[in-house]
Amino acid sequence: MNSISFDITNVLSTAVGKEGLENTMITSVSDKLQSYNMELRDTPYPFMDLPSNKFQFSEMKKLCDTINTKKIKNIVLLGIGGSSLGTETIFNALLHPFHNLSDAIRGHKPRYFILDNIDPHKINRVIEIITPEKEDTILIAISKSGETPETISQFMIFKELLGNATGRIVLITDRDKGILKEIAEREGYPVLNVPDGVGGRFSVLTPVSMFPAAFMGIDIDEIMAGAKDMAQHIKEKGPVENIGIILSSILYLMDKHGKNIHVMMPYCERLSGFADWFRQLEAESIGKNMQGPTPLKSIGVTDQHSQLQLYIDGPKDKFITLIYSADDDRLISNAFPYIESIDYLAGKNLRDLFYAEFLGTTLSITESKTPNITILIDKINGYNLGALFMLYEMVIAFLGYLYEVNPFDQPGVELGKTYTKAIMGKKGLEDKHETIKTKLSTSKTIIRF
Amino acid sequence: MNSISFDITNVLSTAVGKEGLENTMITSVSDKLQSYNMELRDTPYPFMDLPSNKFQFSEMKKLCDTINTKKIKNIVLLGIGGSSLGTETIFNALLHPFHNLSDAIRGHKPRYFILDNIDPHKINRVIEIITPEKEDTILIAISKSGETPETISQFMIFKELLGNATGRIVLITDRDKGILKEIAEREGYPVLNVPDGVGGRFSVLTPVSMFPAAFMGIDIDEIMAGAKDMAQHIKEKGPVENIGIILSSILYLMDKHGKNIHVMMPYCERLSGFADWFRQLEAESIGKNMQGPTPLKSIGVTDQHSQLQLYIDGPKDKFITLIYSADDDRLISNAFPYIESIDYLAGKNLRDLFYAEFLGTTLSITESKTPNITILIDKINGYNLGALFMLYEMVIAFLGYLYEVNPFDQPGVELGKTYTKAIMGKKGLEDKHETIKTKLSTSKTIIRF
Repeated sequence: MNSISFDITNVLSTAVGKEGLENTMITSVSDKLQSYNMELRDTPYPFMDLPSNKFQFSEMKKLCDTINTKKIKNIVLLGIGGSSLGTETIFNALLHPFHNLSDAIRGHKPRYFILDNIDPHKINRVIEIITPEKEDTILIAISKSGETPETISQFMIFKELLGNATGRIVLITDRDKGILKEIAEREGYPVLNVPDGVGGRFSVLTPVSMFPAAFMGIDIDEIMAGAKDMAQHIKEKGPVENIGIILSSILYLMDKHGKNIHVMMPYCERLSGFADWFRQLEAESIGKNMQGPTPLKSIGVTDQHSQLQLYIDGPKDKFITLIYSADDDRLISNAFPYIESIDYLAGKNLRDLFYAEFLGTTLSITESKTPNITILIDKINGYNLGALFMLYEMVIAFLGYLYEVNPFDQPGVELGKTYTKAIMGKKGLEDKHETIKTKLSTSKTIIRF
Repeated sequence: MNSISFDITNVLSTAVGKEGLENTMITSVSDKLQSYNMELRDTPYPFMDLPSNKFQFSEMKKLCDTINTKKIKNIVLLGIGGSSLGTETIFNALLHPFHNLSDAIRGHKPRYFILDNIDPHKINRVIEIITPEKEDTILIAISKSGETPETISQFMIFKELLGNATGRIVLITDRDKGILKEIAEREGYPVLNVPDGVGGRFSVLTPVSMFPAAFMGIDIDEIMAGAKDMAQHIKEKGPVENIGIILSSILYLMDKHGKNIHVMMPYCERLSGFADWFRQLEAESIGKNMQGPTPLKSIGVTDQHSQLQLYIDGPKDKFITLIYSADDDRLISNAFPYIESIDYLAGKNLRDLFYAEFLGTTLSITESKTPNITILIDKINGYNLGALFMLYEMVIAFLGYLYEVNPFDQPGVELGKTYTKAIMGKKGLEDKHETIKTKLSTSKTIIRF
């Protein structure tokens, strides 16, 4: 039986005084969201239907079967932003943390390389490792628009290296348009799609991440089951017991209450990727019109020795989500019985220490009047991960409503993209050249070492 | 010839209007800092002397020689916070990014595992991989105080697993006190020290990181040479051409000017660790007395597809340090000549695209009135890394002076540590039990899924 529980006690003024919220404030926003939630029943966003649709699940399974027969040793994923973060999250949570390192542990599964950057040093080092000419590497290039310059460039590089790559390239892109679609048609590569109306950062439950996951032997039906149950929970529960609505209300109110830095701090290394995934989802969806909280990833207990001092003694501008999950354990051996002062560790369970640190941190940040919520997850599996994906996607949809912004666009990054293309000499952007030249040639203040 | 250049043009009001600084503001703070800098000539902080001292360099080299003969396959580092971040930074910058993955690339060097957390799942997976009973693993446990419960617990676990571990355990800790020192004496383990007066997060140029680096074949003299030249630069240059003073003045003024979120965004995957290292240094040193900017790590170009939207269209509370370094390249093949719209990529160099993205982002954030500085590093090597370590450590010392806080302590985290130990049943903390019990037993508001 899977379970996730959300403790919101420490966000209330009863716990953290004036830095916290009154129950009535939460109720007032929740009621507003509940009306919106009712509207969504009739006109859901396309991402909400994905767990019922299981979009292209049969195509994906067929494709996996076709390729698996070819004894693939490496899988290279080309994608950036929404095209990589979901997959990184799933692999981080559900594969062995040293998957690539050991044949024995990996079994017949391939090693994976997710290329979410174009740093030439890194790209060259990946090429050294996989020796793509050996015909044991499969390439998956992912771009919703099919036009992402980073992904297209990587694809051009790897296509050349792969040589005769029939049967070793899969593209995931829009059904109707874009460069990747055009290439697939011309070259005869198999294609999977991002369904209409589902943007990159909401695409984890589409082939974008489900195909790589399925290919690595992860049970994607289990992920969908969790997502479906969470969608159902949010659709049906009243506002007081509806975690989607309560969580959205708290995130919104915290920001309005001067807590504009939103820390997500999992005590669970397998959720490190999840914090990165949410960081994109929140920043890119809500960071608009001079508004939007700044998401911050932290890892417990590691960052107790890095960031906690600031959270406790720094400005009162932070709201912290602590997540705890530990479904494994190890005995702390009594290796040095002659040292009395470590009696409290000797013979104890490492998980108990891990939990005590989580609890100690929660108590001390609460005492410092830093509002926080804690999420306990009974185990890290596909079901709970699917539920968390759907929960936070719904939270962002709700926040879009509260902030009165469109959570599905990203207008702010277009200018930089245009400049980049103009600098690279893309046709049709000649009018930008003069602007760029002027900007780059203004006198600079430079200090040299 | 190594070089690092710092462009501060876009932090000035001439570039970003009222969100920026006047030159006179910078001058006024810089002059103040220059007087302080003069004082430091006579009474330097102990970390400033490390590049001249080369503390225990001969001991480290001797120890490396002794152990190397034993055909070590794995090196396990136990440490957290300042005891791990410096080493992670150096390995990230100077070793092959897939060092652990390939015998061919690694040569005779061992694989490394840095355990900076006590998540039992991760610890157990590391143990699966290294099979410590095989006698080809060396353990380095690092804690300045010698008392860090996370590191001590890990050490207890691994000591038991290593069995007869003579010659395969090295401890790095305080010269005069602490549990690790006591254990070393009793068991006869070799010990290296953290010099007096150098705190954990300022310890990268001590055996804490220099020994692991030397053991992996990294030229630690080169790191020291860069650090030494930077210390010299800061000591001797006048305020206008002194990057330590200028940078400190800008960081301080930006925070006071409402830019309390300090993004460090390297366009260079090998400096990802450096951003984590600085994040600890700034947060833990300056986050005091309800003050202190919040450091944020971002990676270019990756986070253009994750965080840039927020930086550009979100609240005007951010100051961004962009760092660019690329000393490698690859041709973008003309793999799909029939697609005209990618003419601007075909046959170009990947590094040119990488640089165009860096430039496009810089231009667009400047146009959005987000103050920023850019740092160009000609190559990633030990010398430049050493210079950056010393630069930012000096910056934090200067910031401590400006904020009027002690940059070398971390009083805020003590309470959480005490709670953790009390929960684990440490003797002498019985008086906390009642407090904790009360806090944990107050009625909770919990929502379940």
